Amino acid sequence: MEGNRVKPSILPGFMELLPADQMVFNRMLDTIRNTYEKFGFVPLDTPTIEKSEILLSKSGGETEKQIYRFSKGDSDVALRFDLTVPLARYVAQHFHELTFPFRRYHIGKAFRGEKPQRGRFREFYQCDIDIVGNGELSLVSDAEVLSVIYNTFKALGFDDFTIRINNRKLLWGFIEQLGIGNKTEVLRAIDKLEKIGKEGLIKELDGIGVKAEAVDKLLEFLAIEGSTGEMLERLKGLEKGNELYLTGAGELEQVCSFVRDFGVPEKNYRIDLTIARGLDYYTGTVYETLLDNYRSIGSVCSGGRYDNLASHFIDRKLPGVGVSVGLTRLFYQLREAGMLPQAGRSTPALVLVVPMEGAERHAIELAVRIREAGIAAEVYLEKGKIGKKLSYADKLGIPLAVIIGEDEIKSGLYTVKVMADGTQHTADREGIVDKIRSLTQV
Amino acid sequence: MEGNRVKPSILPGFMELLPADQMVFNRMLDTIRNTYEKFGFVPLDTPTIEKSEILLSKSGGETEKQIYRFSKGDSDVALRFDLTVPLARYVAQHFHELTFPFRRYHIGKAFRGEKPQRGRFREFYQCDIDIVGNGELSLVSDAEVLSVIYNTFKALGFDDFTIRINNRKLLWGFIEQLGIGNKTEVLRAIDKLEKIGKEGLIKELDGIGVKAEAVDKLLEFLAIEGSTGEMLERLKGLEKGNELYLTGAGELEQVCSFVRDFGVPEKNYRIDLTIARGLDYYTGTVYETLLDNYRSIGSVCSGGRYDNLASHFIDRKLPGVGVSVGLTRLFYQLREAGMLPQAGRSTPALVLVVPMEGAERHAIELAVRIREAGIAAEVYLEKGKIGKKLSYADKLGIPLAVIIGEDEIKSGLYTVKVMADGTQHTADREGIVDKIRSLTQV
Repeated sequence: MEGNRVKPSILPGFMELLPADQMVFNRMLDTIRNTYEKFGFVPLDTPTIEKSEILLSKSGGETEKQIYRFSKGDSDVALRFDLTVPLARYVAQHFHELTFPFRRYHIGKAFRGEKPQRGRFREFYQCDIDIVGNGELSLVSDAEVLSVIYNTFKALGFDDFTIRINNRKLLWGFIEQLGIGNKTEVLRAIDKLEKIGKEGLIKELDGIGVKAEAVDKLLEFLAIEGSTGEMLERLKGLEKGNELYLTGAGELEQVCSFVRDFGVPEKNYRIDLTIARGLDYYTGTVYETLLDNYRSIGSVCSGGRYDNLASHFIDRKLPGVGVSVGLTRLFYQLREAGMLPQAGRSTPALVLVVPMEGAERHAIELAVRIREAGIAAEVYLEKGKIGKKLSYADKLGIPLAVIIGEDEIKSGLYTVKVMADGTQHTADREGIVDKIRSLTQV
Repeated sequence: MEGNRVKPSILPGFMELLPADQMVFNRMLDTIRNTYEKFGFVPLDTPTIEKSEILLSKSGGETEKQIYRFSKGDSDVALRFDLTVPLARYVAQHFHELTFPFRRYHIGKAFRGEKPQRGRFREFYQCDIDIVGNGELSLVSDAEVLSVIYNTFKALGFDDFTIRINNRKLLWGFIEQLGIGNKTEVLRAIDKLEKIGKEGLIKELDGIGVKAEAVDKLLEFLAIEGSTGEMLERLKGLEKGNELYLTGAGELEQVCSFVRDFGVPEKNYRIDLTIARGLDYYTGTVYETLLDNYRSIGSVCSGGRYDNLASHFIDRKLPGVGVSVGLTRLFYQLREAGMLPQAGRSTPALVLVVPMEGAERHAIELAVRIREAGIAAEVYLEKGKIGKKLSYADKLGIPLAVIIGEDEIKSGLYTVKVMADGTQHTADREGIVDKIRSLTQV
């Protein structure tokens, strides 16, 4: 056996965490989940493996190249590359069993065989919410989704972030007003603005064949800045009878007005006319979210409104709106930037019960008592000196150690040691749970 | 587009749930996770895709046939078929960064391309715990793991279940005492006893070449029943100087004695000499768990003690003990048997705020207030008659509806309707959260 040893390693482009980081990651996942649930989004879980014809029914190009696709028996199958196609398939398949508007969240892994590079992962957690209507869906939902983004990042501990909002109809209509032909290509070029800069955009637009005058007007339009009220006012002034533009401006105004009711502070959102989102899929409101002090990460939560979720699967109009947090990438970037909350403990345990030799049974019983009070506790069961046992608590970041020896058993008084500062406290059997609670604030 | 419609469906052998069931499933997952964490097990998450040489380093036969294996670029990769091989690889790879004993839990999906059949799934959740020592690991851990099983199933709402415990050394030693040669094959045959019955076992043993006299003695041994104390007494009487038998009996006695300290009631565990576990992997304590009123499901939580977790990956002796709950299968079987807890709600929302026309903004603000108090609340934002709006609450099983119209806004008094019985309650803005709390007991 030993001769055939395999070097333990994982594939490049996959993330794996040590316990302390995993605790932080899971706390972030839980925070996102709890926020989504507080807004009444329903949990969903779909198979990781689906038929290739389902996953590739709409997409092409990049997706086709990146997808993990293979055969098993007679089946042509693939790993999901996002959570949106599975949602579309789910809603179409279970249409008659669902209640609309269907509000679901889905937190799960998706897979893309991208070229490995810093900060890009081949397996990553997506945390999605979508509200899907049957036939129609109120615009207020667009404001609600923005407020879910706001509440999520607040709950994650961020204060300085900006949800940038735009409307594709507005952009589309403005480009139409300018008499530009290749609107889809222009939108894609605008989407790259943050990456390629103004000069780059001018080159791209020139390449597409947009005339210099139109380029100037477009750049002027994209550069408009101001408070939400000022922006909406400015947009009205630019209206030249284009219906799409008019509808887009109206939608944007309505969404922004409801955003206030949802209690989102002015500082955390603003209209940004440069937000285009590359996907053809989006047809109205679009969102991107930037961390103000770390804009280079790029958008940490994006999405938008779409007219028709599942036209490839069902003959029903299913408009919706949704956003997604790419948690694996976000976690990686925050860690790289030293912006992760301090990774304290490497275990959920708050208490380590440490028996001296011969006190094991007593220690076990005490741990049972502590756990029954809802406090995570562990007994150190290996042999060894007291120092070794306490160093285990130290290494894992367990905040409290309860030491039990002959004296403690006789006197009925336990010593509770605060690992951080070494202070010692005393409690009897009846008072131990309260003592632990007061020392750990749980 | 519409001409190219794809029929929305998933692959056979995969589980997908509607919201109400998904809520129950997630509650079970959370219960298991919370129990594991209360014992201080550390969360772990490893890649779904690993190198084939890693995943197949030890196994062969069935696993090789069932595994989802494929190429991506130059890589020969596969989907994990359990959470044990990834644990072994993880511990070996991160050996110097971990603190031992390393106590981890892992709740995640595993994949096996089995022939689809009722109750067997190709993608399934495993909920594993393991305690891994560096060089050695106290036998008390075997008792602790049993107590984690006990606490898990209690927390899941079960009272009538039996954790059956045995020791492979004891079995191995007894077979040796009988002078039987093919011990591994005999153990595998015993493992099938529940399925093939006594007559089937006799045939199997005969086929392996076990002599009739030895078969009789073995069957007599396997049939021993009684309380834990009686069993341990009987086992001592059967000792004929075989060292393995002696060690096994001693281990079993020690583990059982500690199980009492962990507070596991006598009715929920017992020694069962027929528990063999097919895998060569196990070297000491083995567990299986049966639901007393539904034994035909088979074991719902199994595992055992092993001498060496990761000999294929590292030159260290890493003994451990662990068990696994196969939640996808358990959930399926419980649902089939009508034993699932009533699937009540199809949403986490406890409150639906229902605005009459023109009261949307007021409704949104009230919902913000309710959510800030930590209560999951949703606003019905679509147009429609009050009856349609309330029927949405009904269909999703949302327990309370708060109706807001002109009158309510003027008077400042809201009507809270209990959907289950139609009773109506009144509360003002200040009292609404307490009213909701008292009506939902959260």
